[in-house]
Amino acid sequence: LPLSPHPTRRRAMDAGGGEQLSLAAVRDQLIREEDSIVFALIERAKRPRNTPAYSAAAAGGSLAEFFVREAQVLHAKAGHYQKPEDVPFFSQDLPPPVFPTKGHPKVLHPFASSVCVNDAIWKMYFNELLPLFTADGDDGNYAETVALDFACLQALSRRIHCGKYVAEVKFKDAPQDYSPPIRAKVNLVGALYFTSSNYLSRLISWLIWLTSYTLLPQLIFHLLYRLTRFLLHFS
Amino acid sequence: LPLSPHPTRRRAMDAGGGEQLSLAAVRDQLIREEDSIVFALIERAKRPRNTPAYSAAAAGGSLAEFFVREAQVLHAKAGHYQKPEDVPFFSQDLPPPVFPTKGHPKVLHPFASSVCVNDAIWKMYFNELLPLFTADGDDGNYAETVALDFACLQALSRRIHCGKYVAEVKFKDAPQDYSPPIRAKVNLVGALYFTSSNYLSRLISWLIWLTSYTLLPQLIFHLLYRLTRFLLHFS
Repeated sequence: LPLSPHPTRRRAMDAGGGEQLSLAAVRDQLIREEDSIVFALIERAKRPRNTPAYSAAAAGGSLAEFFVREAQVLHAKAGHYQKPEDVPFFSQDLPPPVFPTKGHPKVLHPFASSVCVNDAIWKMYFNELLPLFTADGDDGNYAETVALDFACLQALSRRIHCGKYVAEVKFKDAPQDYSPPIRAKVNLVGALYFTSSNYLSRLISWLIWLTSYTLLPQLIFHLLYRLTRFLLHFS
Repeated sequence: LPLSPHPTRRRAMDAGGGEQLSLAAVRDQLIREEDSIVFALIERAKRPRNTPAYSAAAAGGSLAEFFVREAQVLHAKAGHYQKPEDVPFFSQDLPPPVFPTKGHPKVLHPFASSVCVNDAIWKMYFNELLPLFTADGDDGNYAETVALDFACLQALSRRIHCGKYVAEVKFKDAPQDYSPPIRAKVNLVGALYFTSSNYLSRLISWLIWLTSYTLLPQLIFHLLYRLTRFLLHFS
């Protein structure tokens, strides 16, 4: 059976797609990235807190840190972290790809590659988000737990660093508005503020789904508020 | 804010939970495993086929095989593959855990640990399933693609090997019925056949959701048929 997906859908699959970079394409990608975040959170919520995975072991670090470091080494070998929105949490000593990779069109200002807020994401995830959406408890499935944490961290990081494309599109749409404050080094976070029209409604519907797993309904609104505030802050 | 999840939900979170092994608990876990499968398929469907990830490279194997092998080494180091339903695809030379693990109650007959149908799952996934739910094309995101394949393979394998608990529960419910054919080495697949009452309706609703990504609606019924036949075959 031949596959012929909807052309608009396909075109919007990759926000960094060169000349077709547009606010609509970026928004489409952001919505998909948010689905990935919610899938990852739902999967992690199936397991309880499992705190031993986060306490320092013999080697000095926690299982969670060990897993994220090693998983990123493997992903780098496979050719990951070549695009501006794929930013590793531990960028020191990542090996080069061992398999051939395909180049990606450079659509962002070179400065964009140095933008990284993963330290803030790491702290927010482990200190604030994780205790909110996981139940107290220890079922002993530590390896599975930290693999699910890694998926959550990667999804959050990708979505947040996609904000680089938002900034680029907004700048290209009105360079005359943004160039003077950029030269004057004014903080542009407010000017580049980005809201997706149906973002909140999608997030709410997904979070309601989350309730069927481990959370009390009243917690949802707290989680929704924290996550939204965090995502919007970096958009 | 204190978390106090619904007690029934919590109790059913782990089918291998010792004395509480029951058909209801196993069914609850199977439903959750199926959610994981569908999340993983949806995530993979966001990317096109990306065939270069599956063709043999310089080292002899494909990127997909390299990634699954290396990811399983990392997961084994983190303490994975200790439970009967967690079966690696390449079990040779897996390292021991480097972090402390927690023992799991032994509820299955010792023979269960030798049951593995991962070869069949591997062939089914790459030869039959993948071409059905991914669009033709190559977006160059090979590392991300094979990481998503690994998630699909793991979710399928877990769900299918959870059938070991189904067999155990059915045997314990009626040992007088199953002991004679087991001693006579009769094939018990038919006798242990397991269907979850709301399994099909859940799968259909998820697959309809999949259509919004890359698939034509008429393909869904084909995919549904193949996946259901495959899952039921091993249940």
